[in-house]
Amino acid sequence: MRGRKMGIILLLLMLVPFVPLFAQSGDAQGATGGTVDLMWLAWVGSLAAIGFALILGIGVLRKDAGNETTKELSSHIQAGALAYIKQQYKVVAIFFAVLFVLFLFLAYALHLISPFVPFAFLTGGFFSGLSGFIGMSIATRANARTTWASKTSLNSGLRVAFSSGTVMGMTVVGLGILDLAIWWTILSAFKLPNEEIPPIMITFGMGASTMALFARLGGGIFTKAADVGADLVGKVEIGLPEDDARNPATIADNVGDNVGDVAGMGADLYESYVGSVVATMALGSVASLQLPSISALQFIQIPVVIAAVGIVASIIGTFVVRAKENATQKVLLGALRRGIYLSTGLIVVLSLLLVLFTVGPRFLGIWGALIAGLIAGNVIGFFTEYYTSDNYKPTKDLAGESTTGPATIIIGGLSLGMLSTLIPVLTVGIAILVAFALSGGFIHPEVGLYGIGLSAVGMLSTLGITLATDAYGPVADNAGGIAQMASLEPVVRERTDALDALGNTTAATGKGFAIGSAALTALALLAEYSNKVTDAIGKLFHTAAAGPSAFEQFEAGLMHVVRNAAGVFQSVTLSVDLLDPRVLVGLFFGAVLPFVFASLSMRAVGRAAGSMVNEVRRQIREKPGIMAGTDKPDYAACVAISTKGAQREMVVPTIVAVSAPIVVGILLGPFSVIALLAGSLGAGFVLAVMMANSGGAWDNAKKHIENGNYGGKGSDNHKASVVGDTVGDPFKDTSGPSLNILLKLMSMVSIVFVQVVIVLHNLLLKLFI
Amino acid sequence: MRGRKMGIILLLLMLVPFVPLFAQSGDAQGATGGTVDLMWLAWVGSLAAIGFALILGIGVLRKDAGNETTKELSSHIQAGALAYIKQQYKVVAIFFAVLFVLFLFLAYALHLISPFVPFAFLTGGFFSGLSGFIGMSIATRANARTTWASKTSLNSGLRVAFSSGTVMGMTVVGLGILDLAIWWTILSAFKLPNEEIPPIMITFGMGASTMALFARLGGGIFTKAADVGADLVGKVEIGLPEDDARNPATIADNVGDNVGDVAGMGADLYESYVGSVVATMALGSVASLQLPSISALQFIQIPVVIAAVGIVASIIGTFVVRAKENATQKVLLGALRRGIYLSTGLIVVLSLLLVLFTVGPRFLGIWGALIAGLIAGNVIGFFTEYYTSDNYKPTKDLAGESTTGPATIIIGGLSLGMLSTLIPVLTVGIAILVAFALSGGFIHPEVGLYGIGLSAVGMLSTLGITLATDAYGPVADNAGGIAQMASLEPVVRERTDALDALGNTTAATGKGFAIGSAALTALALLAEYSNKVTDAIGKLFHTAAAGPSAFEQFEAGLMHVVRNAAGVFQSVTLSVDLLDPRVLVGLFFGAVLPFVFASLSMRAVGRAAGSMVNEVRRQIREKPGIMAGTDKPDYAACVAISTKGAQREMVVPTIVAVSAPIVVGILLGPFSVIALLAGSLGAGFVLAVMMANSGGAWDNAKKHIENGNYGGKGSDNHKASVVGDTVGDPFKDTSGPSLNILLKLMSMVSIVFVQVVIVLHNLLLKLFI
Repeated sequence: MRGRKMGIILLLLMLVPFVPLFAQSGDAQGATGGTVDLMWLAWVGSLAAIGFALILGIGVLRKDAGNETTKELSSHIQAGALAYIKQQYKVVAIFFAVLFVLFLFLAYALHLISPFVPFAFLTGGFFSGLSGFIGMSIATRANARTTWASKTSLNSGLRVAFSSGTVMGMTVVGLGILDLAIWWTILSAFKLPNEEIPPIMITFGMGASTMALFARLGGGIFTKAADVGADLVGKVEIGLPEDDARNPATIADNVGDNVGDVAGMGADLYESYVGSVVATMALGSVASLQLPSISALQFIQIPVVIAAVGIVASIIGTFVVRAKENATQKVLLGALRRGIYLSTGLIVVLSLLLVLFTVGPRFLGIWGALIAGLIAGNVIGFFTEYYTSDNYKPTKDLAGESTTGPATIIIGGLSLGMLSTLIPVLTVGIAILVAFALSGGFIHPEVGLYGIGLSAVGMLSTLGITLATDAYGPVADNAGGIAQMASLEPVVRERTDALDALGNTTAATGKGFAIGSAALTALALLAEYSNKVTDAIGKLFHTAAAGPSAFEQFEAGLMHVVRNAAGVFQSVTLSVDLLDPRVLVGLFFGAVLPFVFASLSMRAVGRAAGSMVNEVRRQIREKPGIMAGTDKPDYAACVAISTKGAQREMVVPTIVAVSAPIVVGILLGPFSVIALLAGSLGAGFVLAVMMANSGGAWDNAKKHIENGNYGGKGSDNHKASVVGDTVGDPFKDTSGPSLNILLKLMSMVSIVFVQVVIVLHNLLLKLFI
Repeated sequence: MRGRKMGIILLLLMLVPFVPLFAQSGDAQGATGGTVDLMWLAWVGSLAAIGFALILGIGVLRKDAGNETTKELSSHIQAGALAYIKQQYKVVAIFFAVLFVLFLFLAYALHLISPFVPFAFLTGGFFSGLSGFIGMSIATRANARTTWASKTSLNSGLRVAFSSGTVMGMTVVGLGILDLAIWWTILSAFKLPNEEIPPIMITFGMGASTMALFARLGGGIFTKAADVGADLVGKVEIGLPEDDARNPATIADNVGDNVGDVAGMGADLYESYVGSVVATMALGSVASLQLPSISALQFIQIPVVIAAVGIVASIIGTFVVRAKENATQKVLLGALRRGIYLSTGLIVVLSLLLVLFTVGPRFLGIWGALIAGLIAGNVIGFFTEYYTSDNYKPTKDLAGESTTGPATIIIGGLSLGMLSTLIPVLTVGIAILVAFALSGGFIHPEVGLYGIGLSAVGMLSTLGITLATDAYGPVADNAGGIAQMASLEPVVRERTDALDALGNTTAATGKGFAIGSAALTALALLAEYSNKVTDAIGKLFHTAAAGPSAFEQFEAGLMHVVRNAAGVFQSVTLSVDLLDPRVLVGLFFGAVLPFVFASLSMRAVGRAAGSMVNEVRRQIREKPGIMAGTDKPDYAACVAISTKGAQREMVVPTIVAVSAPIVVGILLGPFSVIALLAGSLGAGFVLAVMMANSGGAWDNAKKHIENGNYGGKGSDNHKASVVGDTVGDPFKDTSGPSLNILLKLMSMVSIVFVQVVIVLHNLLLKLFI
């Protein structure tokens, strides 16, 4: 009960920051000078998260890692994951170095971007990578410990695995807010006005996104190449059971779970989290200009404080995730859900207090926007589970389609995935409208956009705990692999499988949040991009001679420029008219990008898997002792092959993503870029949901059959379902999740390069018009 | 050589209309009164096409239909197709009757639409259906005749099949222009001003689209259900060869080629053709208002005359499609291409003359827009072939992916389809910008939009002949089936297979044109919709009291309303700002629709195929004589099952398509509908290309293996490729092509219901704001 007491203490501590608010609430609404600065809470939240992660991490490491075999297997996985991550960071370092130098040049030679940008970009990438690395390090150590704890009971296994997941969750949110706190403190020390800070901080969002895309894509390619290699040669060709130690690719397969599902997901959600907070800060800063009674700080700090409050709420939530030793799977699921619900409830109440006492009841609608995001996340989460879990009809029916062979289960899965996009899109659409309307967007559109940003922040505010329930899945998966390879008694594997199944259910909810928040965040970034375009055009016209320029002529109809009597530029308003062909064409180009990106990433998996298949075949052929059990397979060689493949393959799609908005911007102008982003957001969001859900449903349809339905394991139906699962692998673990990052990265790139693009576009127009 | 002489005579006759132009060219540019009325050419073109179709049709029917067996098989197919079409028209008739009554009510009771709309709607549906029906009737009679002619030589077979295809091509364009000519004459007789006629005529586009969607969807469901049924039970379970007469579903399979690939395609392209012409007429009428020197008629008649000229050019083109009796497949392909190139060349030259002598060299850019469309069509056609033909690397590589099983060939095919979307989208995007810029859109946007419409008309101007080369494929396919079922000598089947392969190559090009023109036409319709919204808002405000209404308040920011000093409405301009959340949400909702529609139609195929499988199994079980050859299978029962399935399944997707823009319009307003249409166009265009090309590539990868590569027929690789082909079937023959119609139908529905939607939306706003 030590945990429960600690929870209550923390809960009380959370109320401390509100004390000064109560005292000042009268002022805060009217005077902008008297705004209570709560940004220090970012430090509190981030240090609390990091401290909690540290405590839990030490706790996990203190657990028994088992006998020699489990320890050795775990160390193989650790070594493989480390080898992968080292190689990945080398490639990423080159990419970052090139961009860093480019940014230095743009900032210090051409003065087209803020001098802080190059460094903010680096820290974003660094912390994103670090989040993934820490999560992976603890996961690769928790695996054998989970296996060993599962010898005792299901609950013991859950405790270890869930603690490891919590370390990851807390690291992500802790480092996210830490980077934010550091930069806020630094930039404030440079005496930058509050409202100028968030746009600079968006740059570390770009660093985080770039890193995340590499991590997701590289990790996704690695894990699926290893998976396919292990299955295709090991299981199908040679007939070894799953996770047999004689299969040379089996360690690579387990490494894959860690580098893809843990490190990749960590970097991904770090990026979502930070992205949503900084984008909303930036929108808040713009929105505050519309309201004389609100200071920039008042709006800017709300997303940060909500994130900080969310961290503490998540910590409290983790304390109720416990059950009796002999608990069933259902009870454990209840325990996990209880943790999430408690955190959610705390956030609902605390954010209400926060809004009331920082901006007053007049802005209660902002709180409504936040809640709209939280509800939308839950709705999408539920329907993700509905469409992909074999507890519900769609996936059960899909399993049934295996009776007419692989073709029908493929058609069925694609069709299921396509249909499953409807509710998430409607939900996000409704959440957008509700958030916009409640925050008063029909009177002050800028405040409405800020509300949309807040709904994304609301959706991600429980990330600390939702990510914990998500990230413990791969640990359980690994634990099962180790149990199998170490030939432990069958009950251990049964328990780890139960944990894994539990993880799949909660992961579905987590994915719903990730996808929904990605769409909302991308939208917030799009809004911020249009603000930046307005600024950049202003700068262009300020420095240019009076009178209409080629730029102004070409962009006529898409912007309204106001000049004074002397022809000096005064202001510009944008109107990205959908009926303008440049906008429509931008939209088309945007819609095609996610498809091309998904195609490239799927091909990458195919090619990397091909190398793996050849390597496994080579080892089996050249070392006959492997099959006899007298010779050890060269696990490291398989890891190296998959690593090399992943690194090679992740570069082209990333360059496509980064360069598309820049190229389109230079050729067709910034308004086409807005359309490009909107088009890719529309098509990409739908495609991402479809790929994730088709993949999830195929996976669980296969498991449904393996659980004894439609003929069970080894039947023709099972074989058909394996085809579905294999097709689904790159869908759900490589292309689908990468698409979410792609959408945000493209927006971030557009934002960072806005000035450069507009200057070059202007040059081009001068040459040709 | 009779044909060649006739061609020269026709060529000279084509120049006749230009004689008065030469005389008047001086006037035409300046005076609007002296515009030469060339609309009579619509009658000439349509009657020429219909007459030519009649002559060719009689010629086909005069050919020998072969021996008793081939005649009987052909008559079974005829009876099946007729039974299907009757049933389909019954369902369609109910749907049309309901809409007709609704239109009558809206037109005569509420005066929300023009009184001509209900009737224009009916004729559009009627002629679209008739095009399909005539094409199907001749195709089901040409099949046995092609078989019999192929006994003589490849060229003889081609002549019969190509003549049948030409009947179809000419019927589509002839009836299309005929409907147009009739309505132009009637509405002119009612003394309607020229500029008011095209918007009414768009309604028959809606009739045609509705019919086309039913035909494509119903036909696509029928044909794939029959195909899967025939393959799955007949070939796989019982082990009968393809097209074995003992297979109860074999006739249904051959009927499917006719109702899906012929009747469905006929209605589809009728709709594209008419849609592009009427949309461009409407845009021309709006554009002419911007140019004082241009009369409405001058712009309105250009698309019509180009269509008419295109018909004659296509007729001339067909005369060069002939080869020596002993010609090889390559020579025949050359002959087909020669015909298309000749027609294209004629259109390029004649349309230049037309533009020069009707609107003068000042509008040479309009001709450029037309050529941009023609070039874009060819580029898309080439890349469609590149990605889907096994003469090129992508499909060859895809066939190679079969070596690692069905999962990899599925991933490969999906990835190929996704990547193949890039060039068509870029091409259409560039064509849009070029057409817009060349027609002077950056000065007069309305004229630029007219130019975009003309590029669609240009792309479809050679439809008479491109459709002929496309529509003869199913005839050749059927001829092969008959050869097999009638146990003719193997050389006949070889020749019909060669014809079929030829057809596949040219069909790829045809598909490129169909897809490209669908995107451009949908865009033209979108532009026309925004014109209608402007009009409808004007009407609303004219009848309403002065002062800002709830409507005006809610839509603030998306339109700019000008009033005079007394507060009386003067004018309104739209600006569908992409940064407004209602627009963005509309875009999201639009992007999800094609996915949902594709999902529903794929499911429909699955369910209909299930019924077919059960029926075939039942017959084989209950009549053991069938397998022994002593009892005849009940072909008609299979046709009936598939027919019933198709009719049942096509209703829901159609209702979704028709109702989405109306529901969104009433709830969120007309600007969200514009975004909805743009979003569904962006995502739907890409998805349609992907589905068509994935499906085509899987089909040809299978054929590549069947031709002896990667182990040939019966190998595991072949089995894997069959899985790909089966998944591809609903992709390329049901969902993919239906998406093209969906995009246009949604725009048409929006246009027809614009007034209704705005009035209801206004009512709703009054209630809630």
